[in-house]
Amino acid sequence: MKENEKISATGIIYRIKQLKGFSFLHIILDGKIIQAILEGELPEKVREQSAVFFTGIFQKAQIKDKLIFSNDLELKLTTLQVMSTPSESFPFDITKKDLNIGNNVLFDMRALSMRHPKIKAIFKIQEAIVIGFRSYLQNNGFTEIRTPKIVKAGAEGGANIFELNYFGSKAYLAQSPQFYKEFCCGVFQKVFEIGPVFRAEKHNTNRHINEYTSMDMEMGPIRSFYEIMKTEEEILKEIIWTIGSRCSYELDLLQITLPVINKIPMLVFSEAKELVFKECGIDERKELDLSPIEEIKICELIKEKTGSEFVFVTHYPTAKRPFYAKENPNNREETESFDLLFRGMEVTTGGQRIHEYQELLEKMKHREMNVEEFAFYSEAHKYGLPPHGGLGLGLERFTQKIIGLNNIKEATMFPRDVTRLFP
Amino acid sequence: MKENEKISATGIIYRIKQLKGFSFLHIILDGKIIQAILEGELPEKVREQSAVFFTGIFQKAQIKDKLIFSNDLELKLTTLQVMSTPSESFPFDITKKDLNIGNNVLFDMRALSMRHPKIKAIFKIQEAIVIGFRSYLQNNGFTEIRTPKIVKAGAEGGANIFELNYFGSKAYLAQSPQFYKEFCCGVFQKVFEIGPVFRAEKHNTNRHINEYTSMDMEMGPIRSFYEIMKTEEEILKEIIWTIGSRCSYELDLLQITLPVINKIPMLVFSEAKELVFKECGIDERKELDLSPIEEIKICELIKEKTGSEFVFVTHYPTAKRPFYAKENPNNREETESFDLLFRGMEVTTGGQRIHEYQELLEKMKHREMNVEEFAFYSEAHKYGLPPHGGLGLGLERFTQKIIGLNNIKEATMFPRDVTRLFP
Repeated sequence: MKENEKISATGIIYRIKQLKGFSFLHIILDGKIIQAILEGELPEKVREQSAVFFTGIFQKAQIKDKLIFSNDLELKLTTLQVMSTPSESFPFDITKKDLNIGNNVLFDMRALSMRHPKIKAIFKIQEAIVIGFRSYLQNNGFTEIRTPKIVKAGAEGGANIFELNYFGSKAYLAQSPQFYKEFCCGVFQKVFEIGPVFRAEKHNTNRHINEYTSMDMEMGPIRSFYEIMKTEEEILKEIIWTIGSRCSYELDLLQITLPVINKIPMLVFSEAKELVFKECGIDERKELDLSPIEEIKICELIKEKTGSEFVFVTHYPTAKRPFYAKENPNNREETESFDLLFRGMEVTTGGQRIHEYQELLEKMKHREMNVEEFAFYSEAHKYGLPPHGGLGLGLERFTQKIIGLNNIKEATMFPRDVTRLFP
Repeated sequence: MKENEKISATGIIYRIKQLKGFSFLHIILDGKIIQAILEGELPEKVREQSAVFFTGIFQKAQIKDKLIFSNDLELKLTTLQVMSTPSESFPFDITKKDLNIGNNVLFDMRALSMRHPKIKAIFKIQEAIVIGFRSYLQNNGFTEIRTPKIVKAGAEGGANIFELNYFGSKAYLAQSPQFYKEFCCGVFQKVFEIGPVFRAEKHNTNRHINEYTSMDMEMGPIRSFYEIMKTEEEILKEIIWTIGSRCSYELDLLQITLPVINKIPMLVFSEAKELVFKECGIDERKELDLSPIEEIKICELIKEKTGSEFVFVTHYPTAKRPFYAKENPNNREETESFDLLFRGMEVTTGGQRIHEYQELLEKMKHREMNVEEFAFYSEAHKYGLPPHGGLGLGLERFTQKIIGLNNIKEATMFPRDVTRLFP
């Protein structure tokens, strides 16, 4: 877009403002709203949300509207042809600065509500997060893999799994690509996958959805699980950089300040609990996991002390981690694992995995698991897997926290929860 | 990798050849096999498939082995530390030029068989296909979207759909992102998604799998469905270019000649049938779809006449296309749709969709569909969708045809068919 540039293009009419002898039209051109001016009469069938084919020339203008992509230029239309006309006008005002509709309407009418620039901006930022994640890994020797979502056994165990009838056999929807990404670690060494995972969790909170996008990576051979955290730090830097460079319009529209990442601080699990007890008087030191309030407090304290909005908590108790988590050889009660907390919430779980066959078998027996059922998994270990580990970063939760949304569903195009299977 | 370059890295031992006083080791470094030479004794615990940490210096060498990435340089090792040792040696010889195992073992032991360089190469080429598809669209104004895989209604209709129990409600696994990508067309205009789709097809052929990756795009406002084909032509050019530029090692290893794309020829459906009848004497002119043999013959004839390995067949009969397919306004018996055939097989189905609300309602009533059940879909049309259309390109099938694999399952990391839910 330059002054005096002529264009001939298709677009969507976002807003119509008729004045005497001319009209201001806001047109969505290549995804961005521009201001156009049309002299004379409007074509008969043009409506807000009409698709149009138009020609025009850009000229200087002074526009004061944050929704408009360029505030220096407007398009003087020379022709305007209507390509489609909605049957009805929108059930809510999509041209208002803020949408202000309740969550039920927001999600029930998702195909419509997403057209508001501030809602759409959420998903442009989400797209940038994915691009940053992928770009870092692709440029650093990771292979993108595709693993099945219909599986014979869940990776995370427990009851939070959807079951389906697979031609007469019992099958499940994958809770995570865990087993498969470990297999692929034996093939490609460094791998990643960005895909849907499914959790049949019955609680309906502002941080859970039943189908979400997991950005997973797995890497080997590693010499220490700190390498995984180092890689995540680099990934996050690239994500933040990518959002910043692709989404200046969206960041401005939503008034978002991106976090700054230097060195992400690390806290051992027991230290983290001790800190919350000492500084806030909350004593959950005997619990084997962090509670939501502890996660919030840890983030607040670390931000205060170091300025970082991210913090790694390491060495989670063995009892609370899956069977494949590698134990600390000096203390079998804790694992070589970590969570990443960001703005009060866990956004990543990661760690080193058991790579030795005998160690895996013993762990499974210790947990009274059916070793035969998981033979397809342990086979990779039997014939050799490098020391390896990885992580999963929840896309919607990370988006929620980057943007500061109240509910994870707002960071999901078509959310699924216990009561929502629709649209 | 340069002569006299020193390195310190981790890798996987692919092959060990012990000679008097020294050993040749093939090591997988950054995903590529290099030749290394170690003087003196091998460390005790080193095996094929061991992970190792090593230091060394590259020196000139003359190597004649296609599996080796560089045939000019070998690595003279100065140190070699073992990081992991397999419990058992491989159940088949992974270091042979060709794997030569039956399909059952190939797929049952996928975590192992994929480690053969020629199997692994399939998935590096597949990765390049995805990168090319995404790269073209991302650079041309398309937004990457994420749509749900657990849905309330199938997009393709019919019985080929997996059902699951969703907290007491009946739900399905998405057969395609069709409805959702159309919604997103109203939001972002040009969108794409690369994700899993599920088809409960009971036939077990060499061109069907029950879970596959669909590379989908949808675009609007369009003025003709020929724009979609033009875009696919550009996408395919970028895919072929991407494979060529990223995968020279793999192409050489698998002895693949990439297709050349100039202008992809187009044939109207009825013309295509007429051609096969005239040239081959196969008379299926009254059938409403192309049979596998017709697809093969059309490709052969077009290649002979034009040199192109791709051909668009357009204007499929309305009766065989989904309800949302746009009919030719001059002949309601045919749709503004197309398939792309490549090397004897359909790899893409695409076309323009109905964007007008009344037209959609009439079509649904004509097909005796439950209009209420699809109200969530037609709502987008009611409030305005641009004239739009798109396509789906099956990743595994396209990979199969690019590489010349006999069975689509060979182009799938962990294939799912009627009898295979494993690993």
